[in-house]
Amino acid sequence: MEIEKILSGIIKKNENKILLIVMDGVGGLPHPETGLTELESAKKPNLDKLAKSGMCGLSIPVLPGITPGSGPAHISLFGYDPIQHQIGRGVLEVCGIGMEMNRDDIAIRGNFATIDENHIVTDRRAGRIPTDENKKIVQKIQENIKEIKNMQIIVQTVKEHRLAILLRGKGLSPFVSENDPQKEGLKIKKIVPLNDDAIFTAEVLNEFVDRVEKILKGMDTKAKTILLRGFSKIPDIDSFEKRYLLKPVCIASYPMYKGLAKIVGMDVIQGLDTIDDEISALHKLYDEYDFFYLHYKKTDSAGEDGDFNKKISAIEEFDEKISKIMHLKFDVICVTGDHSTPCVLKGHSWHPVPLVIVSKNIMPDDVETFTERACSRGLLGTIPAKEIMYILLASAMKFEKFGA
Amino acid sequence: MEIEKILSGIIKKNENKILLIVMDGVGGLPHPETGLTELESAKKPNLDKLAKSGMCGLSIPVLPGITPGSGPAHISLFGYDPIQHQIGRGVLEVCGIGMEMNRDDIAIRGNFATIDENHIVTDRRAGRIPTDENKKIVQKIQENIKEIKNMQIIVQTVKEHRLAILLRGKGLSPFVSENDPQKEGLKIKKIVPLNDDAIFTAEVLNEFVDRVEKILKGMDTKAKTILLRGFSKIPDIDSFEKRYLLKPVCIASYPMYKGLAKIVGMDVIQGLDTIDDEISALHKLYDEYDFFYLHYKKTDSAGEDGDFNKKISAIEEFDEKISKIMHLKFDVICVTGDHSTPCVLKGHSWHPVPLVIVSKNIMPDDVETFTERACSRGLLGTIPAKEIMYILLASAMKFEKFGA
Repeated sequence: MEIEKILSGIIKKNENKILLIVMDGVGGLPHPETGLTELESAKKPNLDKLAKSGMCGLSIPVLPGITPGSGPAHISLFGYDPIQHQIGRGVLEVCGIGMEMNRDDIAIRGNFATIDENHIVTDRRAGRIPTDENKKIVQKIQENIKEIKNMQIIVQTVKEHRLAILLRGKGLSPFVSENDPQKEGLKIKKIVPLNDDAIFTAEVLNEFVDRVEKILKGMDTKAKTILLRGFSKIPDIDSFEKRYLLKPVCIASYPMYKGLAKIVGMDVIQGLDTIDDEISALHKLYDEYDFFYLHYKKTDSAGEDGDFNKKISAIEEFDEKISKIMHLKFDVICVTGDHSTPCVLKGHSWHPVPLVIVSKNIMPDDVETFTERACSRGLLGTIPAKEIMYILLASAMKFEKFGA
Repeated sequence: MEIEKILSGIIKKNENKILLIVMDGVGGLPHPETGLTELESAKKPNLDKLAKSGMCGLSIPVLPGITPGSGPAHISLFGYDPIQHQIGRGVLEVCGIGMEMNRDDIAIRGNFATIDENHIVTDRRAGRIPTDENKKIVQKIQENIKEIKNMQIIVQTVKEHRLAILLRGKGLSPFVSENDPQKEGLKIKKIVPLNDDAIFTAEVLNEFVDRVEKILKGMDTKAKTILLRGFSKIPDIDSFEKRYLLKPVCIASYPMYKGLAKIVGMDVIQGLDTIDDEISALHKLYDEYDFFYLHYKKTDSAGEDGDFNKKISAIEEFDEKISKIMHLKFDVICVTGDHSTPCVLKGHSWHPVPLVIVSKNIMPDDVETFTERACSRGLLGTIPAKEIMYILLASAMKFEKFGA
């Protein structure tokens, strides 16, 4: 990114506070019957009030036409180039459940799975075993396998059939193949190195899988093996503190978003389950930080389900909640999504996402409602999501003049 | 282009069909008397219907302020960076008349010209000799000159005074100067190498010109020499099939556009003379391909002539014809131009070009008519032409999610 060439020369610290609210997957598409999107159908007086007082626009999460996962979509919102800074699934999983990760560690996503006596995968999720059963198995694995070939092994339950694994030690490489055959009815694969530096790592992992299978044989569970994927290291990425001189905090309930925030060096608050918890946390932490990332998940979940009414309700619920934020004095408030999740597509999409920035230092426009089509006529225009952060910093007066 | 870094990881094949309609030079500027552009003056109910149901915008062919030739303008529309992928005129000419070209060949555009006994060029087009005369001369040249210094020489008539030449063999370079003095009354130039690798090629070409002049001396024609320009090789560019996993076809009548389509690996249908031929071909080929590039030339020709009424008629004629396409089921239809050709400028221009995309996966906007000014208020905004292809692919659901 061009701005990275001058950023350190112009960024300055001040006391102004920025609130970035991410309504996950908030953007949508018209309902075939009404011709109205989810946002156009919802009653949301508080979001509309923000749109009225603020400067609106649309943001392109990664590139035109590209549908992002949550990783690249958030990396963009945080002001980093999402193509330059790609983050592995293992890293996200591990950070998301609060495991401490070192720079040399390899993070891995694991699934417990069922195999038959011929090593054919018969259930890639081991019947979605209960989380408690998962915890018992993981405890037994951890007791029996502390290290392999001098590499430390750390395992932790995520939920149901999912677990996260950290390989710790020198000389490890993430460039190994998965052992997941992707389809049931196929044999589990051997993990193979994808380059010469990864030969040792593949040996460690194959031994790990063998030893886990032996442990599982003695247990009463559908879990008979472990499928490994998403091998990755922490990306080499500057923290918010280093890059923006900010003291940032993440207020989110889902692991994925906490993991992403941790990667860019945010303090991550644990134990928040609901949006009410999140808003309480925001109040409690108000004095301690100058950048607040608040994440709301339900809009995306409803979009993924393709449930139009549920997404409308999620928008309306959140609209009510934000009335409880407005009396807090933030110098800059931004409400947007990380990407669109139109109910008609039942998944993430590439469509530009509505965006509003409220601050005394912006130019208000005549947009009166927070919707995709209304925001498209806002003064911000349609911009890459990775530029939003810089407009927030500017609005918070955190940039010196560039050049004389 | 940024997207090239991730494209191969997200592109997927499916059965959805994309139709890209290029109305050559369709964009215009207001008539000094009416204040209305060509599109604003034309009756075009079918194009307006597309604008009403689709998502509109403007596209910038190459860069703001840059007037493109057909080559870069089309390369952009095909989703390639037009500055990174520059295509020589010789290559376009040669491909456009259906000559098969190899990767090491040098393609050249030739003009028959008239010179006097002192080698002064008196007519750069040899009185625009009839195509039949050109064919006779070219036949004689080909009979007499099959190779020079072991390099194969292939010549073919284009039309009137124009011909195309291929130099085939190892060690040839396109970096030689033209022999065309550009103005009548000046002496024809020697071809000189522009770097050391091109010394041999310049020798071959100068001998070729000498031998052609000797042959022409014995013939009853105004053609007395041959002016050579546009020396070029096939650019190293990924095909549509490799890059987008598409099976593409070009439906065009003019050589230039067929040549461009061939360069990106499209199947090129020969023998189409009119827009009716093109539309019949579209019907006939519908089942065989998943990407259709349909080119309409008359809008550009009328613009080049500066004939406002002729351009209006060309728009209206095409509007009528596209009613015959609308019953074919395309998942994505895009109508745009490769560039503007305003009658008031009598030539190509840099002005952004109107653009509409129709698909069930786009966000409709409130644009009601297909004109420059109406489209400028569309939801697509003003975008680089090289991004259009990616929005078409996305709308046809041909991308996987990027990142987790």
